[in-house]
Amino acid sequence: MSFQIPRGTQDILPGEVEKWQYVEQVARELCRRYNYQEIRTPIFEHTELFLRSVGDTTDIVQKEMYTFEDRGGRSITLRPEGTASVVRSFVENKMYGNPNQPVKLYYMGPMFRYERPQAGRFRQFVQFGVEALGSNDPAIDAEVVALAMEMYRSLGLKKLKLVINSLGDVESRKAHRQALIDHFKPRIGELCEDCQSRLEKNPMRILDCKKDRDHELMATAPSILDYLNDESRAYFEKVQAYLTKLGVEFEVDSRLVRGLDYYNHTAFEIMSNAEGFGAITTLCGGGRYNGLVEEIGGPETPGIGFALSIERLLAALEAEGISLPVSQGIDCFIVALGEKAKDESVILVNQLRQAGLSVEKDYQDRKVKAQLKAADRLNAKYVAILGDDELANQVINLKNMATGEQTEVPLNEFVQYVKKALE
Amino acid sequence: MSFQIPRGTQDILPGEVEKWQYVEQVARELCRRYNYQEIRTPIFEHTELFLRSVGDTTDIVQKEMYTFEDRGGRSITLRPEGTASVVRSFVENKMYGNPNQPVKLYYMGPMFRYERPQAGRFRQFVQFGVEALGSNDPAIDAEVVALAMEMYRSLGLKKLKLVINSLGDVESRKAHRQALIDHFKPRIGELCEDCQSRLEKNPMRILDCKKDRDHELMATAPSILDYLNDESRAYFEKVQAYLTKLGVEFEVDSRLVRGLDYYNHTAFEIMSNAEGFGAITTLCGGGRYNGLVEEIGGPETPGIGFALSIERLLAALEAEGISLPVSQGIDCFIVALGEKAKDESVILVNQLRQAGLSVEKDYQDRKVKAQLKAADRLNAKYVAILGDDELANQVINLKNMATGEQTEVPLNEFVQYVKKALE
Repeated sequence: MSFQIPRGTQDILPGEVEKWQYVEQVARELCRRYNYQEIRTPIFEHTELFLRSVGDTTDIVQKEMYTFEDRGGRSITLRPEGTASVVRSFVENKMYGNPNQPVKLYYMGPMFRYERPQAGRFRQFVQFGVEALGSNDPAIDAEVVALAMEMYRSLGLKKLKLVINSLGDVESRKAHRQALIDHFKPRIGELCEDCQSRLEKNPMRILDCKKDRDHELMATAPSILDYLNDESRAYFEKVQAYLTKLGVEFEVDSRLVRGLDYYNHTAFEIMSNAEGFGAITTLCGGGRYNGLVEEIGGPETPGIGFALSIERLLAALEAEGISLPVSQGIDCFIVALGEKAKDESVILVNQLRQAGLSVEKDYQDRKVKAQLKAADRLNAKYVAILGDDELANQVINLKNMATGEQTEVPLNEFVQYVKKALE
Repeated sequence: MSFQIPRGTQDILPGEVEKWQYVEQVARELCRRYNYQEIRTPIFEHTELFLRSVGDTTDIVQKEMYTFEDRGGRSITLRPEGTASVVRSFVENKMYGNPNQPVKLYYMGPMFRYERPQAGRFRQFVQFGVEALGSNDPAIDAEVVALAMEMYRSLGLKKLKLVINSLGDVESRKAHRQALIDHFKPRIGELCEDCQSRLEKNPMRILDCKKDRDHELMATAPSILDYLNDESRAYFEKVQAYLTKLGVEFEVDSRLVRGLDYYNHTAFEIMSNAEGFGAITTLCGGGRYNGLVEEIGGPETPGIGFALSIERLLAALEAEGISLPVSQGIDCFIVALGEKAKDESVILVNQLRQAGLSVEKDYQDRKVKAQLKAADRLNAKYVAILGDDELANQVINLKNMATGEQTEVPLNEFVQYVKKALE
């Protein structure tokens, strides 16, 4: 009997995993610079958290969650996204009482959605995201957008498109909502069933419909930007001004919406427009959610964040032909001939490792030639050869694989010698 | 309404998360030196994998797995341990055909067991583990044990006890099994029900029974070490000789067993004997499993590995009073006075970040005094103050927080100046 990996998931193997490590390191380094600190929340949460935060009319909640009962009979769900858990933790741990406001957090880890597996879509995927909770300063909106863009740019991506919009405050959204209803209601029968049910619940999401995208009512629909009150407009202008100051290029697209009720003001998406990237071009999405903390049981607290998929980031790198500077190869391989030398090589390997070097030896009882081949495959910078003769003379033969140069090194100087040679 | 974290899980928050990051970094660095490469497998697997590998008579499978049906009706289980998934991936990706043998892998990530939550036990916990697949060399057993010990030692732990044992090969185990049955059978009625059912299924696990631990039959039970055939004994002696060569201290304990059928030869555990560490003293467990790859559908392949819990490692560090050298604090905080200076500070913050510095500013419209306090709480090494006067003169006031020294720096030299000052 053999076993397969669950559909829609993937093993990340050596040869590929180094890219993930590199990208994650870049994300962590950027968060250090921007002063975002890591938070780790559990892989699963009580299901109600997502019903409340993601919203029970969304596709995620209705069709895509991994929801099950634990052995205690509680309904739990593998997290489909990161914001809900971070906000739950923010409230539960009373971080709103922290004198350092805003609380700036980042997370990185697997998320789960039961979707039809296809190129670029996995049922388990990894998100990197940040959340800044507690500030209503447009400068923090700009910071969050700039951090997302910097993530891509610092990896070398160039074919990017940043789109921003404002959903306004509660008052602006209300006015826009009514305008949308007035606009669509008379001819709602021409739109799909989903849109018909969205009309009263959340008319803004009609604009997001994939089926009716080309219907003429879409092009003529009232724009949120025409319904922003003075305060919301001033806020949006300030965000744009900061982005310009930061040298971040963007387009304003009044069609960019976020469906949930508590989203407001800034919304943004980053897309790849690299050729051959495929149909799903969105790399990152984010926005302001000033109502969410309250919804989850905390005090009124503004918040903004983004989430990006590492899988899509790697796909975008590939589409642009960018290879990451991941290091490969080991420092030294020790070839041993004969039983005594083999035993001695165990000690030498250990000494080199304790000195900080990446070292390998043979564990397959291979002949010298095969050991040398193994060293080659592992891309060893140095190969040391120890036979019974060398052992008797207390020396070891060291070869620099780049230059081919060979040296006989006294055994008691070996560790220091190799260490120096590698510097 | 407010939401709680699921029972038996934890949020790892800033202030605590830095320890995790540090420990993980040490683990990755050790794996680099020992030439183990990372593998990432999914959080869940088809349930059958664990039934087959962990074994359907174990507590884990019978009582502790998070098992559920996905929306496609397949039974999936959140991984309760790491080895099964690594071996599944090894087989599925035909790594046995890789010319680099043994295949040396490590993993680090959350595991899930539905246990009664108590000190030191979590329902979601993080394991770091390694697996070396493809070699039957006792030197690799010693390497794996040494790597586990090095992980603890390099973090400063001293109160450790390493216990090793040999379970022998199939022949040795068979002989021992029969001796155990002969020993226990006549008086099996005196032992608990679990032990009675273990007698025929897996008599070795009787030795592991917590209830009957003090029964006189336990002390007199035949030791596996007396039933090792010549080959198994030679193997075990070689492992011990290598450990001694590597300077790794150990005790042999013939009572140390691993219950599953495919375990053989080397078994080991590392325990903390720090005072006040608590009842659960095992930090790490490992051993050889030459039958597992075949069980999972691959060709006959020897394997050995260990797994250790990061939670317990951190608890052991605490019990020994060891604090990790985690860095905290930011490089620079920019205090801005007035609207113009505030806008300008956004640019300066960005420039410093692009130069690699960790930088923060105020996003709460705070007065100068409050901004200075914020800088203090963030442990800023430098505080730069920019007011409208400074802006008019194109300078900024920079204070070294360690020395109290203040300097007026031209704005166009600011980034280079701070960067240099931090070196």
